[in-house]
Amino acid sequence: MKEITSTQNAYIKQLVQLKDKSRERKKSGFFLIEGIREIALALKGGYQIDTILFYSELFPEHQLNQFATGNESLIKLSKEVYEKLAYRGTTEGILAVAKPKNHSINNLEFKTEHPLILVAEAPEKPGNIGAILRTADAANVDAVIIANPKTDLYNPNIIRSSVGCVFTNHVATGTTSEIIEFLKAKNISIYCAILQSAIPYHEQNFTQATAIVVGTEATGLSDEWRVNSTQNIIIPMQGEIDSMNVSVAAGILIFEAKRQRGFK
Amino acid sequence: MKEITSTQNAYIKQLVQLKDKSRERKKSGFFLIEGIREIALALKGGYQIDTILFYSELFPEHQLNQFATGNESLIKLSKEVYEKLAYRGTTEGILAVAKPKNHSINNLEFKTEHPLILVAEAPEKPGNIGAILRTADAANVDAVIIANPKTDLYNPNIIRSSVGCVFTNHVATGTTSEIIEFLKAKNISIYCAILQSAIPYHEQNFTQATAIVVGTEATGLSDEWRVNSTQNIIIPMQGEIDSMNVSVAAGILIFEAKRQRGFK
Repeated sequence: MKEITSTQNAYIKQLVQLKDKSRERKKSGFFLIEGIREIALALKGGYQIDTILFYSELFPEHQLNQFATGNESLIKLSKEVYEKLAYRGTTEGILAVAKPKNHSINNLEFKTEHPLILVAEAPEKPGNIGAILRTADAANVDAVIIANPKTDLYNPNIIRSSVGCVFTNHVATGTTSEIIEFLKAKNISIYCAILQSAIPYHEQNFTQATAIVVGTEATGLSDEWRVNSTQNIIIPMQGEIDSMNVSVAAGILIFEAKRQRGFK
Repeated sequence: MKEITSTQNAYIKQLVQLKDKSRERKKSGFFLIEGIREIALALKGGYQIDTILFYSELFPEHQLNQFATGNESLIKLSKEVYEKLAYRGTTEGILAVAKPKNHSINNLEFKTEHPLILVAEAPEKPGNIGAILRTADAANVDAVIIANPKTDLYNPNIIRSSVGCVFTNHVATGTTSEIIEFLKAKNISIYCAILQSAIPYHEQNFTQATAIVVGTEATGLSDEWRVNSTQNIIIPMQGEIDSMNVSVAAGILIFEAKRQRGFK
């Protein structure tokens, strides 16, 4: 088995870049995954693993077989090299280099006539994106779509805060225009979280083909959504401040749709 | 007006401690607030401001009157001193030293016979506590209770992530035992987010006096809640991972109660 003990190794330097830079992930066609659960979910989600790297004091070599498909390279790391690559505080001694999927909106297919879709436009904080992906997983929505994304999905903060379910959700990305065109072509109603001309969310019927669309906390949804909204919806706010965390708002809206659908 | 230009000033050193250390906040009986909106909400919430500190290039002196009650000291800071105290990236040039309130559970009083209360046991991340407080504000719940708190409420990360509504919510803290005793004495039903023997949350009637209780993501609620639960409730999970962000889960549960109550 190959072993790397120098932090100056060219491949290790490349992996550090993969971890830190969206641009490098795009250029190389690879990204880095850290953690046992995250790698397991990536395999479950059909991601192709190119290389597995481990530090044997934290991750015993004989446990590698749970991830090995026979097609990936295995590399043993020294403590120093592992610590250079590891991202998290509490760490499990294992990393994988994987290939991104194509998240084009046109690859989305639905098994049902009445899909439930969550759209988030330009969410900024990786922690919020992670929380949204966890909600989407729990609700088993038919797709999560990120409109005008500010970062690629393989940002280590997104992988971590989604607890790896970024790999198992049906996630698509695209421009707002592409997404609106797609939803219209599929006859999916567009319910936008927009204050103006809105009805309370719980008065809207979400049992037909539904996309629930949320914007950023700072600026809300862009005008294109306003023009193409089937119906604006609002969560009634009765407090001193008029803002709610975007992932909490998305959770409330999606689970109202689930409730109306009898959690089927 | 008093002016401080040295970062070595003893009072400034004390304020740095207030910002950084829960222990210092408790010992001194003061805490630090940063930002225009946050200070305004603290005043609205009835907090007593001891001192206002500002850096005039960012916060013009003539705007101080919006906060001045006549009882507080005003201190002009140099850029260096201000930057030593400021906590946030995008900064507004104004800080206040305020006195904590008494958050004892026994101070809680309700205006209604059927209060709606959110209880979070030992929430760990200030960002989650902030999101929970924003949800509680939006839902105008009768109280938010933090059981077995891991940090004091005046942690700068909590103030920031709550967008200041930590000051306007009815917030109480206490041990789990004290809180259970309080709820029982007031005949408030206890609905715990616990997997075992649970019914789906939307099948529970939340229109009477209700406390919705959520635990940590890692370990859930402690046994004391299990024993004293009126009814366990669960958000049906249909995904690959069995966890949801705690502030999202709290939002879904509280807003189902609000929906059942017709947002009154």
